[in-house]
Amino acid sequence: MKATATMFVTGPDQRGLVARVANFIFENNGNIVHSDHHIDTESKLFLTRVEWELDGFRIPRQEIGSKFAPIAEAMQMSWELHFSEERGRVAIFVSRYEHCLYDLLMRHAAGELHGNVALVVSNHPDLQPLAEHFRVPFHVFPITAATKKEQEGKELALLEEHRIDLIVLARYLQVFTPEFVARYPNRMINIHDSFLPAFVGAGPYRQAHERGVKLIGATSHYVTDQLDDGPIIEQDVMRVSHRDTVEDLKRKGRDLERVVLARAVRLHLEHRVLAYGRKTAVFD
Amino acid sequence: MKATATMFVTGPDQRGLVARVANFIFENNGNIVHSDHHIDTESKLFLTRVEWELDGFRIPRQEIGSKFAPIAEAMQMSWELHFSEERGRVAIFVSRYEHCLYDLLMRHAAGELHGNVALVVSNHPDLQPLAEHFRVPFHVFPITAATKKEQEGKELALLEEHRIDLIVLARYLQVFTPEFVARYPNRMINIHDSFLPAFVGAGPYRQAHERGVKLIGATSHYVTDQLDDGPIIEQDVMRVSHRDTVEDLKRKGRDLERVVLARAVRLHLEHRVLAYGRKTAVFD
Amino acid sequence: MKATATMFVTGPDQRGLVARVANFIFENNGNIVHSDHHIDTESKLFLTRVEWELDGFRIPRQEIGSKFAPIAEAMQMSWELHFSEERGRVAIFVSRYEHCLYDLLMRHAAGELHGNVALVVSNHPDLQPLAEHFRVPFHVFPITAATKKEQEGKELALLEEHRIDLIVLARYLQVFTPEFVARYPNRMINIHDSFLPAFVGAGPYRQAHERGVKLIGATSHYVTDQLDDGPIIEQDVMRVSHRDTVEDLKRKGRDLERVVLARAVRLHLEHRVLAYGRKTAVFD
Amino acid sequence: MKATATMFVTGPDQRGLVARVANFIFENNGNIVHSDHHIDTESKLFLTRVEWELDGFRIPRQEIGSKFAPIAEAMQMSWELHFSEERGRVAIFVSRYEHCLYDLLMRHAAGELHGNVALVVSNHPDLQPLAEHFRVPFHVFPITAATKKEQEGKELALLEEHRIDLIVLARYLQVFTPEFVARYPNRMINIHDSFLPAFVGAGPYRQAHERGVKLIGATSHYVTDQLDDGPIIEQDVMRVSHRDTVEDLKRKGRDLERVVLARAVRLHLEHRVLAYGRKTAVFD
Repeated sequence: MKATATMFVTGPDQRGLVARVANFIFENNGNIVHSDHHIDTESKLFLTRVEWELDGFRIPRQEIGSKFAPIAEAMQMSWELHFSEERGRVAIFVSRYEHCLYDLLMRHAAGELHGNVALVVSNHPDLQPLAEHFRVPFHVFPITAATKKEQEGKELALLEEHRIDLIVLARYLQVFTPEFVARYPNRMINIHDSFLPAFVGAGPYRQAHERGVKLIGATSHYVTDQLDDGPIIEQDVMRVSHRDTVEDLKRKGRDLERVVLARAVRLHLEHRVLAYGRKTAVFD
Repeated sequence: MKATATMFVTGPDQRGLVARVANFIFENNGNIVHSDHHIDTESKLFLTRVEWELDGFRIPRQEIGSKFAPIAEAMQMSWELHFSEERGRVAIFVSRYEHCLYDLLMRHAAGELHGNVALVVSNHPDLQPLAEHFRVPFHVFPITAATKKEQEGKELALLEEHRIDLIVLARYLQVFTPEFVARYPNRMINIHDSFLPAFVGAGPYRQAHERGVKLIGATSHYVTDQLDDGPIIEQDVMRVSHRDTVEDLKRKGRDLERVVLARAVRLHLEHRVLAYGRKTAVFD
Repeated sequence: MKATATMFVTGPDQRGLVARVANFIFENNGNIVHSDHHIDTESKLFLTRVEWELDGFRIPRQEIGSKFAPIAEAMQMSWELHFSEERGRVAIFVSRYEHCLYDLLMRHAAGELHGNVALVVSNHPDLQPLAEHFRVPFHVFPITAATKKEQEGKELALLEEHRIDLIVLARYLQVFTPEFVARYPNRMINIHDSFLPAFVGAGPYRQAHERGVKLIGATSHYVTDQLDDGPIIEQDVMRVSHRDTVEDLKRKGRDLERVVLARAVRLHLEHRVLAYGRKTAVFD
Repeated sequence: MKATATMFVTGPDQRGLVARVANFIFENNGNIVHSDHHIDTESKLFLTRVEWELDGFRIPRQEIGSKFAPIAEAMQMSWELHFSEERGRVAIFVSRYEHCLYDLLMRHAAGELHGNVALVVSNHPDLQPLAEHFRVPFHVFPITAATKKEQEGKELALLEEHRIDLIVLARYLQVFTPEFVARYPNRMINIHDSFLPAFVGAGPYRQAHERGVKLIGATSHYVTDQLDDGPIIEQDVMRVSHRDTVEDLKRKGRDLERVVLARAVRLHLEHRVLAYGRKTAVFD
């Protein structure tokens, strides 16, 4: 695997955007390995992801941004730059359900995720042995209505100390304050145990059972102020029948939750997810 | 294919139900070819579907019901009896979208549906040539707010005249009055162009596009007074991405609508769907 | 929908390919609406699909090829150029099964396919009424071992006369001679009624039933000399169980065959399929 | 969860089978909670699974078999009897890939499997820490061509000592001798990393990549003498594209392998799988 740089570029559609970006890379002797350019015709927005090999690229990494900035500015483009060598630093938040945490740590150990799980945070001590098995530091911050704000402050300090890039809510059953959420825009991924927007909020499997649906789902999304309303990254479903009890739905749902969350985390860490407005473009 | 009888039996769970039903058939020399017995543990309800060959069965068809009735009564069971030789008589209601109508008539012509499509009813004349190609009578009843009640009366008269057993709403965009709906309880199947309960009501593909979902769905259900709220028979989904416009969702959705509606109609006509409460048991 | 040009470019991977192509378009005042560039790391091959608006483009359509040719030659690139205004001319070959033909003609009538179905060819007269309903000319060429070569000659003459771009084998049960196949390389799409490479050849549903598989499939692929071995364009599967007879598999399989073939035809006609070696890249 | 008994009954189809079985249970005061009766019309075989509550049942557990035997004999029926209280004892065989082992042990710890994982056997020591984390004994039996027979003897002794009911091959890369296989007929479940019968044998993901398939699959099956040819219990597939390298296929495939194997193991342990001939009936 050669070292690459990946750039997201977005902005109002206009002639020459692909050429400008491609030329910037070519003229500096970069070799584009993937390039995907899409125009959202409704919002007149262009969405580009381009990845090129850094071997032989004439601009040093730390100067690429400043060299590209004037080009972007001239065309009113927003951009993000990532390097394949910089693995995202991840904090996993979890309550008592273990399946998503197991899954993520197992994938992490297997090298499936392009990131480093730096720590696990929980409002309960139950899953400490699991984190320890995978040799990941585990921190407990019990939360009550009275202590939430204060505890979030401590959590934020911890996250900053570890320079966390991505927060993964792996069945973390606390709702964050808007202040906390505002600190990690499009960098906090939640798994909701339903096919959103169906069954928002608590007890989605019970809701699904009562409604008599024939498929259950799971949804991973970026967290916003609005409960279960952030940009969706990935969804999947599974067939159920009248024979399935609520417990069966929960069991089947766990398999969905694990893979849907893991896919979203992997896509984010590989810089394949671009949030725009209420949506995401997923370049897979 | 030998002639068979199919019986649905439901009621409060108690000992000996399967044995009573099986014995009734065995003692009269019937051979059970399928039998499926399920207990809904939450509602303490048993749900049974049993199918047996009529060849050699000692009770004539027209007397089976009256002979079984006392057994059922003794155990507070509800029951339905169907014969494989009696093909359900179907009326398809449609507005201007043709894909579901084409699909159903094509399957009907191919012998896939265990029923006879006796007529097509529409509030627009547009699809008359399609019905004629398949040699199915086509009736137009234009509907306005002012004429709806009167037109429904004429439709009901037509349905009765043709002894219709099942109404299929193949993208029929009018809402029926509660009086009409009450005449065909669990005998009117609708296709809704979303994964219910997400995106109830009008414009589900636009709603789905705005929410940025990664899967779209379709739902077939029995019609009740409550819009898009009846017992669900079948659902399915299809993957979409940020590249799909609303028009793409509609195109992809048509494929979903066709198969999801056709599956529900086929299951109903083969007497494999048992509605109970807000749900269905599907014995497939 | 604005008029666009679409170009496929392939060749040995080297620096600057994306930039060269993007510049060619930009310098002539074209606006790229989609661009997708992929490198097949094993074969060191780059695969590009780029689509741009022709409105304002400085090179007239008929000269774009000759202007691009020297650029391509300098970099050993192969290329194909298509215009959105030129709808592919399609001939559908069919035997006696009607489901795929119905499906394609229905989609054609609904405007789903970016092409014109110019004619239907069959070795049997059975489906003539179906073609006539959709007002598509129908030609019968009965085939026996003795007459095959001669009949293929007549078919080829007919295809040339109608300037056919794409042949769709919609359950056409004759095998073509290698000479015929050689005339339409990567322009003849077949639907095979299994998940290839499982169950090559005749009777795949019976084979599947005997093997006791839990999913059945369908595969659309370009036709090559080798039976059922051409580059795969699209595949899909459906769940089955021990309850399904061979007839049930065939019925379920028809739904698969229809959609899998239709997707492949649509993708081809929108110039989203690029065959390379034994494979295809599908830019969807 | 009340204690139940589950019986599989198979044999040549004849009148009164359901009634005989149902009566046996009813007359002894059992309450049937699930009953599923199917006739395989091709082989004229009936396949029944019936489950009833033992609470109040008049025959003691250890005598149920001997009381039912004469009824079965009279009708040439084969049968199996299981009690919900008797959890199957499982041995997991594994080589070096850890994902299936993690998955099974995680589910076991979460109470998802109706069985007890008594031990893990491997031909390599690598996964010992994993087994220890879940507090399951781990045994290493290195295998070479020369030692296979002898080592299998030791393995068999260990399995007998622990009264193992089910062997799960969770990516165990050794082929057993026919003698070993003969000891656990329909009690040894393998996971094969392809959609069988496509890509039998070694390197299925590489084979899939070379063939350019658009879906990859996994298959769980009972082990027989014939490689990858035993009765299939469960299969599933996942979409792939030309962008996926062989490594991507392997990564995606691991997710398939885990869930497909886990579903098969769960179904077997809940006595929902009935092998007959080359196939299985799955009562789910």
